[in-house]
Amino acid sequence: MRIDLNCDCGESFGHWQIGDDPALLPHVTSANIACGGHAGDPSVMTTTVRLARQHGVVVGAHPGYPDLTGFGRRVLPMSGAEITATVLAQIGALYAVARSEQVELTHVKPHGALYTHAAATADVAEAIVRAIAAFSRDLILVGLAGSVLVEAGQAVGLTVAREAFADRAYEANGLLRARGLPGAVIEDDQQALMQALKIVMAGNVVTPEGVEVPIAADTLCVHGDTPNAARRAAFLRSGLQAAGVDVIPLDRIVHGA
Amino acid sequence: MRIDLNCDCGESFGHWQIGDDPALLPHVTSANIACGGHAGDPSVMTTTVRLARQHGVVVGAHPGYPDLTGFGRRVLPMSGAEITATVLAQIGALYAVARSEQVELTHVKPHGALYTHAAATADVAEAIVRAIAAFSRDLILVGLAGSVLVEAGQAVGLTVAREAFADRAYEANGLLRARGLPGAVIEDDQQALMQALKIVMAGNVVTPEGVEVPIAADTLCVHGDTPNAARRAAFLRSGLQAAGVDVIPLDRIVHGA
Amino acid sequence: MRIDLNCDCGESFGHWQIGDDPALLPHVTSANIACGGHAGDPSVMTTTVRLARQHGVVVGAHPGYPDLTGFGRRVLPMSGAEITATVLAQIGALYAVARSEQVELTHVKPHGALYTHAAATADVAEAIVRAIAAFSRDLILVGLAGSVLVEAGQAVGLTVAREAFADRAYEANGLLRARGLPGAVIEDDQQALMQALKIVMAGNVVTPEGVEVPIAADTLCVHGDTPNAARRAAFLRSGLQAAGVDVIPLDRIVHGA
Amino acid sequence: MRIDLNCDCGESFGHWQIGDDPALLPHVTSANIACGGHAGDPSVMTTTVRLARQHGVVVGAHPGYPDLTGFGRRVLPMSGAEITATVLAQIGALYAVARSEQVELTHVKPHGALYTHAAATADVAEAIVRAIAAFSRDLILVGLAGSVLVEAGQAVGLTVAREAFADRAYEANGLLRARGLPGAVIEDDQQALMQALKIVMAGNVVTPEGVEVPIAADTLCVHGDTPNAARRAAFLRSGLQAAGVDVIPLDRIVHGA
Repeated sequence: MRIDLNCDCGESFGHWQIGDDPALLPHVTSANIACGGHAGDPSVMTTTVRLARQHGVVVGAHPGYPDLTGFGRRVLPMSGAEITATVLAQIGALYAVARSEQVELTHVKPHGALYTHAAATADVAEAIVRAIAAFSRDLILVGLAGSVLVEAGQAVGLTVAREAFADRAYEANGLLRARGLPGAVIEDDQQALMQALKIVMAGNVVTPEGVEVPIAADTLCVHGDTPNAARRAAFLRSGLQAAGVDVIPLDRIVHGA
Repeated sequence: MRIDLNCDCGESFGHWQIGDDPALLPHVTSANIACGGHAGDPSVMTTTVRLARQHGVVVGAHPGYPDLTGFGRRVLPMSGAEITATVLAQIGALYAVARSEQVELTHVKPHGALYTHAAATADVAEAIVRAIAAFSRDLILVGLAGSVLVEAGQAVGLTVAREAFADRAYEANGLLRARGLPGAVIEDDQQALMQALKIVMAGNVVTPEGVEVPIAADTLCVHGDTPNAARRAAFLRSGLQAAGVDVIPLDRIVHGA
Repeated sequence: MRIDLNCDCGESFGHWQIGDDPALLPHVTSANIACGGHAGDPSVMTTTVRLARQHGVVVGAHPGYPDLTGFGRRVLPMSGAEITATVLAQIGALYAVARSEQVELTHVKPHGALYTHAAATADVAEAIVRAIAAFSRDLILVGLAGSVLVEAGQAVGLTVAREAFADRAYEANGLLRARGLPGAVIEDDQQALMQALKIVMAGNVVTPEGVEVPIAADTLCVHGDTPNAARRAAFLRSGLQAAGVDVIPLDRIVHGA
Repeated sequence: MRIDLNCDCGESFGHWQIGDDPALLPHVTSANIACGGHAGDPSVMTTTVRLARQHGVVVGAHPGYPDLTGFGRRVLPMSGAEITATVLAQIGALYAVARSEQVELTHVKPHGALYTHAAATADVAEAIVRAIAAFSRDLILVGLAGSVLVEAGQAVGLTVAREAFADRAYEANGLLRARGLPGAVIEDDQQALMQALKIVMAGNVVTPEGVEVPIAADTLCVHGDTPNAARRAAFLRSGLQAAGVDVIPLDRIVHGA
């Protein structure tokens, strides 16, 4: 039994800080770093890559809709070609910064509205997949387990990592309960750990209504912009390890170790 | 006798057009494509890379101060580390777009105020050089012939292409006469061709005051944002060729052909 | 018989130019000036206000979705409160610049996707109307004749100017034929003048299918970003005047002269 | 004895928060609200104006260099005309938002590098003053006590409020000790209160070297982006009031009450 713990990071911008990357990164095994589209700037990218390297955390690109004002949480009306172009430019920007720090990118995980939209919309998923495949077939695509994005990546032969959430409630159809709905977010650490263990060890989640839904996951997302994010991550990790789960980086999960 | 003709291009942004790249690119041998810092966006970058490929023109990155409002023509107060980070991110963005079009970058030429500032300021020059060297030592640095930027590149072992101008007057110290001063810009096509021929064949330019200044150049810049830019470029090229000069891409100039 | 001729202008940004305002403004009677949302910057706004004043053209704000990349031609997913806030900020920015040039704003005309979206969507229309009413009830709202936006303005007692188009084909329902459909844009000057005369003198337009649709208009839009925009405007104006139509500013139309 | 306490606020942007305006505003008497130049967006501006109104705090514009990336802390190479234009547009944006909340602007205080640069540079100071005078001579200009900006405002007859700092060390020439120098920032609450009392009651400050420097101040700045900013503000206010100082809004200070 094995799982990767990933977190979104490098989402500060100029003078504005968000999240506490130095506290969180020691507790995860892979880092999705913002690329200047929805957040991040070249200096923040540099700092964050260094921090990840220092903690032995593998680095991936976290491209989003190019929308600082909306923090990538709004679906912008962009064509597939425009999405491919911006995802390429964002991956490339992080690739270059990482390369200057002797770090190779392992993966790409879309951010926010781009992630959610691609999970359910084939042409958006394909636009993202086209960017990754054109840039490098060595990059692992991270997408919501069971989503259209994962399917689109597999369809063209990309290595795909399926993501699940310890702290979000699931619906019977295997998708996430929409934020805003009651019970959508699991606040309690114990309960989140329980869901994590169910996902990793039993391969399923239980909906708030008690329906058991099968789920196959390679990586669990740890949210960084909540209070106590670092404590939560540490708790999840030690809880998983105490149960005998190997917590190891994404690339070792999907390629075997 | 051989020379490269380069032009800045891909400097449109969203709905705003500047220059006439489709008319200009057939007449040059290398293209410096804006990377989203001072101009360009991922869609414009994609279109411009395709256009360059179609005309057999080699492609380089044209990073500038991240300043759309100022079109990269203002010196921003940035630290060396910030300049290195933005140059890396800009090179990477274009690299990824180009890669998706099966085009490899051959060179990097800083834009506008970054070019001019680096020509005379060692720490700015070194910040740019650090970015290029960290990204790829295969990239050729294009800088003003005789400038601090060229020296900084050579000092760390980068391959450097020295740029000269057919349509700008020179001072006795080998630098360009500042725009705004009388006679700084050579408007007449014949006169520009004459200066190009002197540079390439005799290795010198003559200042407006009649002083002959030695200059060693690998590439001539063709300005794209002037009216009749394409006609001027075609005139220069055919004039050079008629005089027996090989007009060939940058990489063949600096590496030998 | 009387009509206002309005044009969108001040849509350059930094170094990028669009339209030829100095050529166009002499031929219209009211100017809708971009406010930095979709286009324009404070310096362009200043220059454009001066130009309008010089030609005796009344000045209005032309707020759009805050989206330079998309030039305001994309519907952004914004709440009503966000739309109200950005429209207020954009009107205020132009108001201040105009005031420094001793020019009072007469009107507000939303731009691009904001105009079109508000023409058919009540909550978007109301968000715009709320901004205008909160800023000044002396401002005239310009909206598509027969649209939801015009109704929303009238519902709260704003003075409204109904806009029609000489160079766009209409559908039988009184709305514009979507760009992209065949025949949507009327290219021929004579035909455009004919439609302008029908609108002003007969109060109707004829669809491409020959259906006569009643239309009541206070102002005709002259597009500035087409080639020959100035010549077209001059032709329309002289044609209207030759037919005995008074071409006079918006405020004199809606308030009486 | 009387003094205004002012704070910079509304400096969040989109999803990024900075400062804790709801905690700070109850303890000050005037608020300088960012206008979208260096920070703030129309929605943040709206929220902040409401908050200030709710706490009976007078509202002023806080324009800065248009530089989100640099948070207005970098001097941009802008001409006087460009500074005037951006200051106008920023004041107007906040004016419109405030007006929609039935709040009138009382003052303008430049932000960051614009404030500091204008304190020492006549043409920058005059560019700002021109914007304010053109917009409304009822607006109070807030500038560093003893600075070129204050002089420039007085020279054209603007009402000026002179600002001093309780938590910054002064030099013998009456200017602030540069951040970064040792002792530049006064961290201790008691010591800051002591300096505030000296400024208000004795009309002087004592430099770290023990030199007594006369200073005439109408308002004290309370920094909002330090930890414990609200506690510090409350401590200063109650300390001043306990010493018999009236803490009242800017407009009542400069116009008499």
